[in-house]
Amino acid sequence: MKNICLLGATGSIGLQTIDIIGAHKEKFRLYALAFGKNIEKALPIIKKHEPKIIVVQDNNVRKMLLAESLNHKCEILIGQEGMIAISEDPQTDIVVNAVMGSVGLPATIAAIKKRKQIAIANKETLVTAGHIVMDLAKKNGVHLLPVDSEHSAIFQSLNGEKSSDIHKVILTASGGSFRDKKRDELVGVTVEDALNHPNWSMGAKITIDSASMMNKGLEVIEAHWLFDIAYKDIEVLLHKESVIHSMIEFQDKSVMAQLGTPDMRIPIQYALTYPDREAFAQSKRLDLAEISTLHFAKMDMERFPCLAYAFKAGEIGGSMPTVLNAANEAAVDLFLNGKITFLEIEKVIESSMENHQVINEPNLETIINIDQETRQRIYHRY
Amino acid sequence: MKNICLLGATGSIGLQTIDIIGAHKEKFRLYALAFGKNIEKALPIIKKHEPKIIVVQDNNVRKMLLAESLNHKCEILIGQEGMIAISEDPQTDIVVNAVMGSVGLPATIAAIKKRKQIAIANKETLVTAGHIVMDLAKKNGVHLLPVDSEHSAIFQSLNGEKSSDIHKVILTASGGSFRDKKRDELVGVTVEDALNHPNWSMGAKITIDSASMMNKGLEVIEAHWLFDIAYKDIEVLLHKESVIHSMIEFQDKSVMAQLGTPDMRIPIQYALTYPDREAFAQSKRLDLAEISTLHFAKMDMERFPCLAYAFKAGEIGGSMPTVLNAANEAAVDLFLNGKITFLEIEKVIESSMENHQVINEPNLETIINIDQETRQRIYHRY
Repeated sequence: MKNICLLGATGSIGLQTIDIIGAHKEKFRLYALAFGKNIEKALPIIKKHEPKIIVVQDNNVRKMLLAESLNHKCEILIGQEGMIAISEDPQTDIVVNAVMGSVGLPATIAAIKKRKQIAIANKETLVTAGHIVMDLAKKNGVHLLPVDSEHSAIFQSLNGEKSSDIHKVILTASGGSFRDKKRDELVGVTVEDALNHPNWSMGAKITIDSASMMNKGLEVIEAHWLFDIAYKDIEVLLHKESVIHSMIEFQDKSVMAQLGTPDMRIPIQYALTYPDREAFAQSKRLDLAEISTLHFAKMDMERFPCLAYAFKAGEIGGSMPTVLNAANEAAVDLFLNGKITFLEIEKVIESSMENHQVINEPNLETIINIDQETRQRIYHRY
Repeated sequence: MKNICLLGATGSIGLQTIDIIGAHKEKFRLYALAFGKNIEKALPIIKKHEPKIIVVQDNNVRKMLLAESLNHKCEILIGQEGMIAISEDPQTDIVVNAVMGSVGLPATIAAIKKRKQIAIANKETLVTAGHIVMDLAKKNGVHLLPVDSEHSAIFQSLNGEKSSDIHKVILTASGGSFRDKKRDELVGVTVEDALNHPNWSMGAKITIDSASMMNKGLEVIEAHWLFDIAYKDIEVLLHKESVIHSMIEFQDKSVMAQLGTPDMRIPIQYALTYPDREAFAQSKRLDLAEISTLHFAKMDMERFPCLAYAFKAGEIGGSMPTVLNAANEAAVDLFLNGKITFLEIEKVIESSMENHQVINEPNLETIINIDQETRQRIYHRY
C-alpha cells in the first residue's frame, strides 16, 4: 500500500489521479491532499478517501472546511507551508504535484530532498527552475516521473534505452483549438472558441496554451530538463489525432513511440505504478483500424510564434523561461477575463521577454521575484 | 571486435548484413560465411572481408571456389556440417542465421548450445522447431535476437518492460503486392506482378509470401515462440506504409511501437549491436511530416486465407507448422516456375494441412522427415 500526497486535487489532473487511486484501492491510499478553495469539488473526495491531512489555500477556506461535518479525523493545514509539510511527511510515499503555477515549486523541492517518488504535472517546476530541480534530483537519486502524456511517452520510449543513444526527441502536438485557422483568422476569436479543444478535455489555462502552442513550448523546456536534451535536438511535429503521444529517434534511426487513446489517466497511472504497469479497465483500447488514418505535418513557427518564444527562452536560459511562463500566465488570465484578444497573448509575452535582463542560474528567491514582477508589470499595463 | 559467422551471405539479409559489417569495421569482422552456390555474389565479399572459413553447398562449388585466386588463407567447408562447424566455432561471437529453409535449423541449435549471440532471420528455426529451439535457448540463457523488422520492433518495444505486462502483440502488415486487389482480381496474376512489392526490396520467396500474406502468418508463429504469446493475443493490422513496424499493447492500454524507414539494415544492425545502438549514416531518417499520412485497416482473413492457415497451424501446433511451411515453400516454388497459379498456392497448403496427421512435440528428425515428405508429395502431384 502506497500513501499518496496529491497536490492540486480539484484540478483536471488531480481528479483523474483520484480516479486511478479509486481503481486501485489495494495499492494506493490518498494519504494527504492539497487544493485551493474549490470545496464543492474537494468535499466528495475527502469524504470518500478520508485523507489524514488536508491543505487548503488560506484560513478562510480552512474555516469553511471545518464547518463541514467530516466523518474522519484529519489535520487541516494551509498554504505553501502546508504543501511542503505533506510533501515531506514521513508517511508519504508518492507526491503527485498537479498544482498550477510556481506555488508548486517549493513542494517539489521538499519532496526531492526526502527522496519521494514524484509524479510531476506542475510545469513551473521544470520550466522556471529546471536547473535547480534536476540538479537536486540527481544528487538525491530521485526520478521525476512525468505525468504529461508527451513526456510520459518519451519516458516510456526511453525505457531500457540509454540517453546517450538519443538523436532527437519528437514531441507531437495536436494543434489545439485553432489548428486549422490561419493567422488572419485568429483576429477576434472568442474565449469559447479557444476552449473548444478537439482531443483532450483539460483545464482552461492549458486549453488556451494548446491553442497558442505555448503548451507545447513549455513542454519543450520540460523535455530539455527531464531528458537532458539540447533544444536543437527537440522537434515538434503536428499530429492532429494525438495518438502517437511522442517519440524518440535513436542514433541508429530507429524510432520508439508510445501510443494510446487521449486519456490522461494512463500516463498518471504509469507515474504511480512505475516501473510496473497495471490493468486499467476504465480506459478504452487504442483501435488503430477504427481510427484508420494518422496525420503528420511540419510545425510552422511563424504560424505559432509562442512556440518560437519558448525555444528562444529555453536557449537563452537563466531567468528567461520564468519570464516566458509568468507573462504567458498573466496574458492567458487577461484573455480569459476579456481584457485582451487572443493574438495579444503573444505580444504580451514577446514584449516581456524583450524587456527582461537575464539573470543566469537564478536561485528560488530570484525566480519567484521575477515571476511576480513580470506578472505585476503586465497587470499594471492592462 | 566481434567475430561474425554469417549463414546465407548472398541472400538479401546476408548482403545487408555485409553492409553493416562494412560500416562498422572497428566493431565487427566477417569471420566465417556460408552460401549456397552463388559464387558471383560471394566472391567480392570474400575478397573484401577475407573470412577465415567459407562454407558452400557442395563439393562442386568448393572446387569452383578453389579455382578462383583468393589472396588470403581460408578453409572451405561444405554443407550442413560446415554450417554447424562455423556456428559453434570457438572464435565465432555472433551467428547471423539468414539461410532459407530448414537447412538453417541444425546450425541454430549448434549455436545455442555454444551460447553464441544469435541474430535470427531463418523462419524455419522458429516456425517448425519453436518448441525445441526456445526450450534450448532458455536452458542455455541465450537470447534469440530477431532480424525481421516486425519482430525487432516487438523486441525493441519490450525493452525495459515485463513480458507479463503484454496484453496484445500487434504485427503490422503492408499487404504486399496485391494489397488493393480483391480475390477475384487475383485470378491470372503473374509472377512479375507478385514480385512487385510496394515497400520492401526482398528475395523472391518472401515477396510472394507477402503477397499471399503467408509471410505474416509465419511471423505470427515466430512471434508466438519468440515472445511466448498465445495466438489469441496476436493481432495483425494492415498498415500499408510499413512505418510502424509492429507494436505491443500493454495491460495498462499503453501501446509501444517501433517505427522507421523500410530499411532492413536497421533491425539487422540492432541484432548485432544489442543492447547498444550505433549510428548508421547510410540509412534515411524517418520523416513523418514528409510521409504525412499513415493508414490502418482491419485484416480480412477471408481475403488472405494463408494468414488464417498459419494461425490454425500454430494453434494446432506439433508438426502442423512444419507442414504449413513446407507446403508453402513448395507451392511458391511451383508458382515461381509457372507450374501453378497464384491462388493455387493456398489450395496446395490447405490440402497438405488437411491430409496431415499431427505428431505432437516432434523431434528434429521427425520435423525434417515431415518437411521432406510434404514437399515430395506436392512435387509429385504437380
